[in-house]
Amino acid sequence: MRTLDEQQIRDVARGAAVLGTGGGGDPYLGTLAAVDALNRTGPPTVIEVDELTDEGYVASLAMVGAPVPLVEKFSLGPELMESYAALRDQFRKPLEALVPVEIGGVNTVIALILGSRLGIPVVDCDYMGRAYPEVPLVTPTLYGRSASPFALADERGNKVVIDAVDNRWAERIGRTVAIEFGAICPGMMYPMLGRHAKEAAIRGTLSLAETIGRCLRDAESKKEDPIAVLLKVTRGIELFRGKIVDVQRRTQRGWSLGDATLEGMDDFSGSRMVVRFQNENLIAELDQKVVGMVPDLITVIDSQTGQAITTERLHYGFRVIILGIPCDDQWRTPAGVALGGPRHFGYDIDYVPIERLNDRRRETSA
Amino acid sequence: MRTLDEQQIRDVARGAAVLGTGGGGDPYLGTLAAVDALNRTGPPTVIEVDELTDEGYVASLAMVGAPVPLVEKFSLGPELMESYAALRDQFRKPLEALVPVEIGGVNTVIALILGSRLGIPVVDCDYMGRAYPEVPLVTPTLYGRSASPFALADERGNKVVIDAVDNRWAERIGRTVAIEFGAICPGMMYPMLGRHAKEAAIRGTLSLAETIGRCLRDAESKKEDPIAVLLKVTRGIELFRGKIVDVQRRTQRGWSLGDATLEGMDDFSGSRMVVRFQNENLIAELDQKVVGMVPDLITVIDSQTGQAITTERLHYGFRVIILGIPCDDQWRTPAGVALGGPRHFGYDIDYVPIERLNDRRRETSA
Repeated sequence: MRTLDEQQIRDVARGAAVLGTGGGGDPYLGTLAAVDALNRTGPPTVIEVDELTDEGYVASLAMVGAPVPLVEKFSLGPELMESYAALRDQFRKPLEALVPVEIGGVNTVIALILGSRLGIPVVDCDYMGRAYPEVPLVTPTLYGRSASPFALADERGNKVVIDAVDNRWAERIGRTVAIEFGAICPGMMYPMLGRHAKEAAIRGTLSLAETIGRCLRDAESKKEDPIAVLLKVTRGIELFRGKIVDVQRRTQRGWSLGDATLEGMDDFSGSRMVVRFQNENLIAELDQKVVGMVPDLITVIDSQTGQAITTERLHYGFRVIILGIPCDDQWRTPAGVALGGPRHFGYDIDYVPIERLNDRRRETSA
Repeated sequence: MRTLDEQQIRDVARGAAVLGTGGGGDPYLGTLAAVDALNRTGPPTVIEVDELTDEGYVASLAMVGAPVPLVEKFSLGPELMESYAALRDQFRKPLEALVPVEIGGVNTVIALILGSRLGIPVVDCDYMGRAYPEVPLVTPTLYGRSASPFALADERGNKVVIDAVDNRWAERIGRTVAIEFGAICPGMMYPMLGRHAKEAAIRGTLSLAETIGRCLRDAESKKEDPIAVLLKVTRGIELFRGKIVDVQRRTQRGWSLGDATLEGMDDFSGSRMVVRFQNENLIAELDQKVVGMVPDLITVIDSQTGQAITTERLHYGFRVIILGIPCDDQWRTPAGVALGGPRHFGYDIDYVPIERLNDRRRETSA
């Protein structure tokens, strides 16, 4: 058990944005809200997965909806507590800790905010090892756990509690409510026993986010190349380096959908990359060949600062690298690929791990 | 306190369809489900408003959504109990009785079904004295009562409980959930104290529906003119007599919207009438002059049988009369007109009571 200070929270937010693969919300917004909570309710506490008791209960908090409106409609106020209150009134069992549902710039940090307000710890893990745009796309789904009761709240004071027959229905109903609530709102979900959280947890991801954030900060102060640092600490692959020349983006059915086109620079001069996203980056295509796909992580990184650029911030002219990071092994099982792989998002391609895709590419060009 | 037998339930459903002004669901479907419940769980009990205790609790059950899909998707099965269970889990106070939210062919009868299953009585009243297509359009809204907690269930087992800041938000969120549940589903709403139900209740409407149904049945067996009987028992006005020559209908945002055009017969030969509806009939225009409007009741009646024709059953070629019935006085207050009058539905006209509109018309033509 340890507490996080302001600097550590900033590091977590920054690192979580790298692992958030373009989604999970803008880390700047997350940091603003978290530092405010720190000043008001004290530093958040983090525990290891093994510190959870088997028979205690945990639940998860996440922003549900499209991240684009979050920039205009800052929904990290009293509605976080309201969504917790709505779950509590239905679930009626005390929560021992909060589990971040995903690693992302906002969605990891809001667990720290709520934990601090409730005086309960946040577990150093998550259920994705990345960010994903749909409620069922978490490791507990692979173990048959339910997202329900699933409680949503808005800034007006409206609350909804969903008890769905499965996690796909939780997603459908929750998304429709989030749209009615103004396209994005907080939701408390996946209340479960500690022992069920332990089996599904992807461990140490909050610490990993913090480490990534701290290494980027160190590189900044030492004037080192942030990209070299990132590649090392994430064990990632530089899939591309170039300039964003076009971004197509639309908000539809409660998601930010679109693609970004990039023109290559340096080693990638003369090549083009297209990154396709649904809140999160899903597919990276280099000269029309797929070089990275879900469930592996694809993140757009500012090549000057090493800062992750979330999909709602992508913009013409940014000079970036495209970072590919292997996903957690839970996603590479047949059930994991079926749940969170390319076919789930409508891409009729077989999943190939990003390391293999890029070995092959190097061989071909050699 | 009295119980209803099968014949009385059939009478209620038939009479409620007349008062349902085209909405509230097809009485045939309501009767099917109610007679089935009668055989399985015994006859429903009806009490007078004054038999309610002040400090006991009541709630209301209604189908939320568009009646058109109800014809294809018969949603009066286990989901009725499920919506009750969802309310109970949140509200956690025993219900002393059920209050029909409106008078309509399905929505009055399902209160009888649920009452029979739960072994609690149904109160001889409703909150509209007619049917209306939106959750807030009930007399309790005029007294500041809340529709929440508002519980919806579908036939798959999905349940949602809404705790909205006001009844307009209950409507918005409830409608969006009903659409996701397949355009129509049952909802438990307006849980409140007996004394609050007493002040808002429009009394004796269930008995009135039964009387209308019984008189129509008597007329049938005695081969009397059912229209003359209806006009007498409802104290209604024959606004038009003719043949349906066109029906425009669409299902949108969870409602059945449209209009029916009629060509006149007998006294109305050479005239045309247009009836505009949103689940319920809202406006009747005789040769482009409004002769009836919400909150007054407008019902399309088969001129041979005296049977009410709900908006989803309107069809080319039907020979009908258009029956106008003065609404309850609660709707004729300024607050009542603002809540349920023509402007609420986007018609920029002042409310004029149907009796005055039709006196004036007769004077003009004299």
